[in-house]
Order: sequence, then structure tokens, then C-alpha cells
Amino acid sequence: MLRVPYNDLYEALHRAMLGLGLREDRGALSARLIAETTRDGVYTHGLNRFPRLEAMVLNGSIDIHAEPTLTASFGSIERWNGNRGIGNLNAYVAINRAITLAKQNGIGGVALGNTNHWMRGGTYGWLAAEAGLFAICWSNTLANLPAWGATTPTLGNNPLVIAIPRVSGEHVILDMAMSQFSYGTLASYAKRNEPLPVDGGFDTAGNLTRDAAAIEASQRALPIGYWKGSGLALVLDMMATMLSGGLATHQFSPDPLRETGQSQLFLTIDPTNITSAAELTHIADAIIDDLHRATPADPTKPTRYPGEQTIQLREENLRLGIPVDPEIWQKITSKH
Amino acid sequence: MLRVPYNDLYEALHRAMLGLGLREDRGALSARLIAETTRDGVYTHGLNRFPRLEAMVLNGSIDIHAEPTLTASFGSIERWNGNRGIGNLNAYVAINRAITLAKQNGIGGVALGNTNHWMRGGTYGWLAAEAGLFAICWSNTLANLPAWGATTPTLGNNPLVIAIPRVSGEHVILDMAMSQFSYGTLASYAKRNEPLPVDGGFDTAGNLTRDAAAIEASQRALPIGYWKGSGLALVLDMMATMLSGGLATHQFSPDPLRETGQSQLFLTIDPTNITSAAELTHIADAIIDDLHRATPADPTKPTRYPGEQTIQLREENLRLGIPVDPEIWQKITSKH
Repeated sequence: MLRVPYNDLYEALHRAMLGLGLREDRGALSARLIAETTRDGVYTHGLNRFPRLEAMVLNGSIDIHAEPTLTASFGSIERWNGNRGIGNLNAYVAINRAITLAKQNGIGGVALGNTNHWMRGGTYGWLAAEAGLFAICWSNTLANLPAWGATTPTLGNNPLVIAIPRVSGEHVILDMAMSQFSYGTLASYAKRNEPLPVDGGFDTAGNLTRDAAAIEASQRALPIGYWKGSGLALVLDMMATMLSGGLATHQFSPDPLRETGQSQLFLTIDPTNITSAAELTHIADAIIDDLHRATPADPTKPTRYPGEQTIQLREENLRLGIPVDPEIWQKITSKH
Repeated sequence: MLRVPYNDLYEALHRAMLGLGLREDRGALSARLIAETTRDGVYTHGLNRFPRLEAMVLNGSIDIHAEPTLTASFGSIERWNGNRGIGNLNAYVAINRAITLAKQNGIGGVALGNTNHWMRGGTYGWLAAEAGLFAICWSNTLANLPAWGATTPTLGNNPLVIAIPRVSGEHVILDMAMSQFSYGTLASYAKRNEPLPVDGGFDTAGNLTRDAAAIEASQRALPIGYWKGSGLALVLDMMATMLSGGLATHQFSPDPLRETGQSQLFLTIDPTNITSAAELTHIADAIIDDLHRATPADPTKPTRYPGEQTIQLREENLRLGIPVDPEIWQKITSKH
């Protein structure tokens, strides 16, 4: 495994962003968000996604100079147009605006339309939690998931993020998509010729299967909880699109390199005016302690809360260097 | 099947509520909410739950005279104490308060602690949607679901409701719990000796199974999406409890007749100040049309949106009478 120091990763991404033509400060921020995602162990949505971002800038799907603009506002809620700018920079503006609104009003909401892939959704949960706020955020995506009972892709795997702040910094960050497995995960199981740990979709004959290659062939991945995740994916798409005025899942090009115009929602709650820090800590710690006390099915694998592994991976990667894909690393460092 | 006219059902429930000692107007409202739930086809959470409500009033878990009280407030968010009053009356106050807050500020939030079972969660989604608002609401429950990787119940099946208002009145109301199947559903499959349509949990040997009786024996029901629903159930419990100050899942008595002190959260968004009614209708209709156009796996079963069946069942039940359990119906009408 190739590991590089965090600063080298950040500098390489920063140079690459400037190479794409971004303004200095915007290139620095976008590079930092991608480097932090990689540092935190979410490799699929960090450096490894840079080539796709680059391709979408080059094919005109993303406008590197565009900044989000406020289009409507009422009390605690705002609607923004992402103007098809860089996805993580747009989402960064949106979550920070939602945080400000929540600090002023207890709750804040930003509906962001016409944006681009936000990379790691968890990033915006971490930002809210670091500010001491709860957050619920989601994005829609292109159609890559059949609705329950259908054979054709109708729904997006719409990532949903829920952030629980903790005074200790050990935030609980749920960051999950609506498909049981992403097509990226299916591809790596198929490549290793390894069965999925649980059913991940249907084969072409319509039977539930753990065979990743069979699901790739049918394009019938499973929503989490079958009919339940199917319903959840639908309402997330509806709510984000209706509030933001961006594209709905059914309106995206099926070409991932043309997936632009997303609808996203960022909701935040500031608890400080209705609770005390001591009460928040006491309640959160007791719930986490109870989870950790659960009898594990495999004694070597204690139960974990969402995001628990992140802090450990972050520390390890800062100490040993950030694991990078040698091919992508070579490309990014030779070109820029 | 025994069917009774809606008014007879409502009158019987109203008399029963007064029989429990409720004040006239409170008895009428609680009876109406239970009757409407039954009318809408959610039989498990309507009339069929009345005996449990009655038992909990009699054993002192529910205080029929208690009304919720505001304990903290800041801008768009409020914290209420349910004072262990009737669950659906408390939740009715909370959702209406959240609707008022959203009309004033764009978004509204009510954290309600120390309450009781809200019966059908969808009720509060319908109330928000009828007012033209989006809503996200949930409750925690007693521990009845092992966390992913654990063999002991740690999580609640925490129902989550997401409501999408539509001008036509054909609201999209997602109302789902975190367990793939409730223990009630498992019991009816076991009774009929019928396999579940998909895996519903583990047997005592730790294998995933569709055998409902085996899951009843192991008490290891599955969260939706395995590790994903497990994480979601945890963060819903944390967020509702930390904001409301009510009990967390791990603090409830395992006895369902003593399940009192719940934590609930009611979030609402009023879109009228940042969108137009025409835009909302246009976007929602296009998404629903696309869903209905998906190729069904079974040509006789077109894909449906969450809540689509409700309006049809409601019409049918109003026309033919509301299906009731003869035994429960006999008891309630003979006693009161």
C-alpha cells in the first residue's frame, strides 16, 4: 500500500485544483475537503473521485468559477442556486449558512439546487457537529436503483447524513446511501469473486442474490430494507427537489460524467438554548455505553456507532501516511 | 370480516375514552385519531391497540389528565414535557405547535419527551401535509432490535415519518419502523406457518432466515438494511432523547405495558415562502409519474408511492364500513 503524508496529499490536490483553473482560496478549500475525506478513510469519495471531478470540469458539466447564490429566504429557511459550481464548495457554503441560521433561530435549513456531487456527505455532518449542532442532510443522485417491485432504475441511492454532536469530539456521524451496496462495492466483490455478506440485489432471473456480478448484470441493486428504503429514497428526492427547485432523480442523464444539477437539503439544530451541555453529554454517553455493552455475535467484534472507526482511521492515517491509489497518485502528481 | 360504520367506531371509541376518565374534548380527539387510523387501514395501530392503551391507563403508566407543557423555547425550536399523558394527544399538540412555528419561521421543531406511544406515526405526517407542510417526525421505543453485530436487543424499532404535501391531497406519507418486520407481523406469519417474503432476522444458530417462528425464538429481528438501519435507529434515538430530555431506548422497561416516557421529534417545513404552489405540484407530479412508469417485476403490481394505498383504503372503508376485530369490538361496545 502506498501511503503519503497528509500535507503532500493536500498540496498535490491543491495544485491540481489550481491547474483546473480554480481561484487560489477556492482551490485550497476544495483540496482540503477532499484530503480530509481521504484522511478519514472514505477512499471512494476522496482522492479516488478526483479524476471524475476533473473529467466533469473538462466536459463542461461543472463550472469551476460558479458560486452559489441566494434565491429565496424566509426566517430559518433559505433556497440557494448552486449554479453548477464545484459540489463540495457549494455544499460547504450551504451547511455553513444552515449553521448560522440555526445559531440565530434554533433550527436552520438550506435547500440547494442546481449543484454537483458533494463528494463525501459525511463532511457536512462533521462540520455541523464540530460547531456543536445536530444535522440532517441529503442529496439526490441519478437513477441507479429500481424502486421496490420494479425492474428499471427509478430511484437514486440518495445519501443521507445524520450528525450527533458530542462535546468530546467523538461525534456520531451516520453517512449512508439508500442502496444496500454501491456499484463500486459490487464491482470489487465481483473482481475478487467473493460473495456479498448479505443479499445485494436480484439476478437477471429475478432471484435475490449475494452474487455481485449477477447484480451488475441485472442492474437491479437492492434498496436498504427492500420496500422501506425504496420509499425513503423517493421521499428524500421529492423533498430536496421540491424545496430547492433543482433536478429530480428522473431528470438526470444516465451518464455519471453528466450527473449535474443535484438537489440537496441541509437541516441543522442548535441545542444550546433548550438543553445544557452536561445533559447532552450524559444522554449521549449513556446510549453509546449501552451499545458497547451489547453482546456481540462475534466476540472479537464489539458493536460500533456510526463514525466510530473514523477517528481511529484518521489518527492512524495521520501517523502512517494516507493510503492512496498509486495510479491516481502518479497521475495527479506528474500532471500538476 | 366484521365491518362497522365509521361513526359507530368513533362513537364506541369516544365512549370508551370517557369511560377511562378523559375530559370530553380530549376523549373526542383521541377517539377520532384512533378511528381515522383504523379507517385508513392501519389496523395494528388503531382500534387493535386500544386494549393496550386501556391497560396502561389502568396500571398507571399513562396519566389521562396530563397535558404537555412547554419547558424551553428558542426561535423555531421548542422543548415540551409530555408529562406521561395520552400519547396521541401529546403528539397532536406537538405537531400542531411545529406547524405554527414553521408558518412563522419557515421551519419548526418540537422535541417532546416523557410522552407515551403515539399510536400511528403517519397521523402526524398527514396533519402536517394537510396544512401544506413537509414533516420529518420520529419516536423512540423500547429495545426490541439487536444492533448489527449484536445478539441482544439494544435498539428500538423507532418509527420514522416523512410527509410530502401535495395540493391534490394525495400526500406522500412514509411511515416506517427500523425493524424489517414488527413482532406483530412475525407472529401472524408464524401463526399461518408461512415464510416471510424476505429475510427477517436470525435463527438461534445465527443464520439469516425467513422463518418467522425461528426469529420469534431468537428475538433477533433484522434492522432494515442490516448495519444501515442499525445506525439509523441509533441516531434517531440519540437525537430525539438529547433534544427532548425524555427516556432513551436503553432506559425503557422491557415490559410493553410499561413502555412510557418516550422521546419524539417533530420537524416541519413550510415551503410557501421559498417556492410556488405551481412549482411544488409540477415537481411532485413528475416524480410520481416517473415512479408509476417504472417497469413492474409483476405486471399486475404497478409501483406505488408511500401512502398511495391509504386514500383508496380510506374511501373503501368509509363506503363498506371499517373492518374491526370482532373480539375487541365486542369488548369495547359491551363495556362502554
